[in-house]
Amino acid sequence: MDNIIVQKYGGTSVGDTNKIKRVADRIIKAKEQGNNMVVIVSAMGHTTDELVKLAMEIMPAPSGREFDALISTGETVSASLLAMALHQQGYEAISLTGRQAGVYTEDVHNKAKILDVKPERILEELTLGKVVIVTGFQGVNSQDDTTTIGRGGSDTSAVVIAAAIKATVCEIYTDVDGVYTANPSLIKNAKKHKVISYDEMLEMASLGAQVLHPRAVEGAKAYGLEIHVRSSYNFSEGTIVKEVSKMEIKNPVTGIAYDENVAKIAILELPDVPGIAGQLFTKLADAKINVDMIIQSNQVDSHNDIAFTVSRDDLIKALEITKEYAKSIKASNVVHDNNVSKISIIGVGMMSSPGVAARMFSMLGGNGINIDSITTSEIKVSCIINSKDTEKAVRLLHDGFELEK
Amino acid sequence: MDNIIVQKYGGTSVGDTNKIKRVADRIIKAKEQGNNMVVIVSAMGHTTDELVKLAMEIMPAPSGREFDALISTGETVSASLLAMALHQQGYEAISLTGRQAGVYTEDVHNKAKILDVKPERILEELTLGKVVIVTGFQGVNSQDDTTTIGRGGSDTSAVVIAAAIKATVCEIYTDVDGVYTANPSLIKNAKKHKVISYDEMLEMASLGAQVLHPRAVEGAKAYGLEIHVRSSYNFSEGTIVKEVSKMEIKNPVTGIAYDENVAKIAILELPDVPGIAGQLFTKLADAKINVDMIIQSNQVDSHNDIAFTVSRDDLIKALEITKEYAKSIKASNVVHDNNVSKISIIGVGMMSSPGVAARMFSMLGGNGINIDSITTSEIKVSCIINSKDTEKAVRLLHDGFELEK
Repeated sequence: MDNIIVQKYGGTSVGDTNKIKRVADRIIKAKEQGNNMVVIVSAMGHTTDELVKLAMEIMPAPSGREFDALISTGETVSASLLAMALHQQGYEAISLTGRQAGVYTEDVHNKAKILDVKPERILEELTLGKVVIVTGFQGVNSQDDTTTIGRGGSDTSAVVIAAAIKATVCEIYTDVDGVYTANPSLIKNAKKHKVISYDEMLEMASLGAQVLHPRAVEGAKAYGLEIHVRSSYNFSEGTIVKEVSKMEIKNPVTGIAYDENVAKIAILELPDVPGIAGQLFTKLADAKINVDMIIQSNQVDSHNDIAFTVSRDDLIKALEITKEYAKSIKASNVVHDNNVSKISIIGVGMMSSPGVAARMFSMLGGNGINIDSITTSEIKVSCIINSKDTEKAVRLLHDGFELEK
Repeated sequence: MDNIIVQKYGGTSVGDTNKIKRVADRIIKAKEQGNNMVVIVSAMGHTTDELVKLAMEIMPAPSGREFDALISTGETVSASLLAMALHQQGYEAISLTGRQAGVYTEDVHNKAKILDVKPERILEELTLGKVVIVTGFQGVNSQDDTTTIGRGGSDTSAVVIAAAIKATVCEIYTDVDGVYTANPSLIKNAKKHKVISYDEMLEMASLGAQVLHPRAVEGAKAYGLEIHVRSSYNFSEGTIVKEVSKMEIKNPVTGIAYDENVAKIAILELPDVPGIAGQLFTKLADAKINVDMIIQSNQVDSHNDIAFTVSRDDLIKALEITKEYAKSIKASNVVHDNNVSKISIIGVGMMSSPGVAARMFSMLGGNGINIDSITTSEIKVSCIINSKDTEKAVRLLHDGFELEK
């Protein structure tokens, strides 16, 4: 089938029945242009939070299966209401649960991976001329039980379904109108990208530019599916995420990202025994704590330090585990700092432009901003700095790399 | 499998998370006595109303399919929360949707009839020692779409599932502790029935003693399944509904029921043309108005009157249709009275005790209560009287037929 557009609307876009009606208008506009429409929806506004609250009133750690059965109802509600809103305007539409749409996942609950999409029913309903609305964030496992697919779920649902039905494009509607060179509420002259590569988007997405979930970007990259990130509040073009040839790249840096949800922990004066890092990070992983940057430094004497960052939400738990571990290996001291931020420059062009990292360090250092630690990837350089300098640093780098051009 | 008890809890019984925890306690008590437990739940308190409200904000007459997809989420929420409440107490439990429990219905929506129950999964989970919780009020049709089964749905779900898995008894938990000879809030010495026959329960149920839905009673009668109607607020024995042999029946009258939600409409001086009643009641049925009693009286001259009762909610609509129809056939006048009640005596023993109806009329007439109209069935006599006399009439009949004994 040709001309299939997949659109995904998040919880804010379907937050109440008036917003749902506006989403219906937007779908109709695209449908009237001759497209076959498949729409993925999240739960309305705070529905999921309310369902989670009910579960917590019963027990602190509910079973994954029952938790999924519970919270997946949120998307079913918004999907059926959106179908009604299309009916009300005289359009044929049908809502499908993840299971009905053929979204098959692993047997695990709460963060199941999607294994396969069998799109027969979606395609059948499209052939009948209907707008097909699919509940995001959920699927079914081999036990015939509802599963949910974890954070960023609806974005991922949209991408995987779009790939399975060979959609022309997957439009992700959000409350910003695209991907900018830096946070536009901070940097007035931040520029919206017309096009950005999957890899750059991945780095932006995982660095707190919360436009599109990294899992969804990875999926789109794997399938070569074009994503269009755009606003549900206007009709202007957003940002296309796709494969970008290096030939097209002019500026080595395409975006500045920052993340203020960062805390740093360090164990000082570790005894120089092999396997310490492995043991510590296994313990943290077992407690489901995501460790971001890791900095290990060997000193000339027999001791060394190890430092790492976690999100601020995980700080207390991570500190507890680290202190206990430090005690068990007779390390002298654990320190922490939750007054730090991570600031990053991103760009596929960095790979072929030596000296970009050095320029970043000079811009920061030359303006009195102390760099606590550094990590780099092929297309990204990140520095931990003091939180108070975050805004200043973003401005300096945005100007310094001339991103407003 | 032996010793299966099916319990059904209505929306009030699972109205909030504390009530759900109390329901879990009650299930555990029965489980600990060596029973295999299957539990049918309704949606929490006002959940269904809230979902209906959302739909109405979108469109006044939503599609049956989408409406069912929407409102069936209410039962999924309460079922999964109840499973969690059992887990919290250390018991194994699993929630199943109507589809997962094998409840197959007609293809129609909103009031589908249950065609079949394939209880394999329920039995499999019972074999694993789990308490099986099934969402009431819903099933799945041949299109793999969720259906709902209309008013009294969860009672009916419970009975049909209990029959399919050959349960020993189906316990219906409600906010009263059984079936009384008359409304106990009106008649202080009303007596709770230990046992009542299916037929008597049917007449009670359809006459405003809103304890158990008639559809469920019919189902139980068809399968010979024993129903135990009891209160979710205490542990006392309620009323058993089962087949009662006529040998056991002492008093021809076993209950007094009344219904104040009654309005009467009459067309006066109809021309004596054939087919008028058929035409009028077809028009009312098309408007989904349930007509209860119909009284047609032929006068000696060429005109006759026709009167009927509807529920007060339907009065305005029914009047409108009736007036329009009367005009079309040049009938002189339509009158109505919404100041009436229906009072009924019920008893399987009536069939073999002549003169019971006459005793009723004498008791009412002899005490100055005017009888407007009468209908009878094999086990019931109903009279329309003035609303102001309702309470007096219930007392007179309860005393007169010695139901307190």
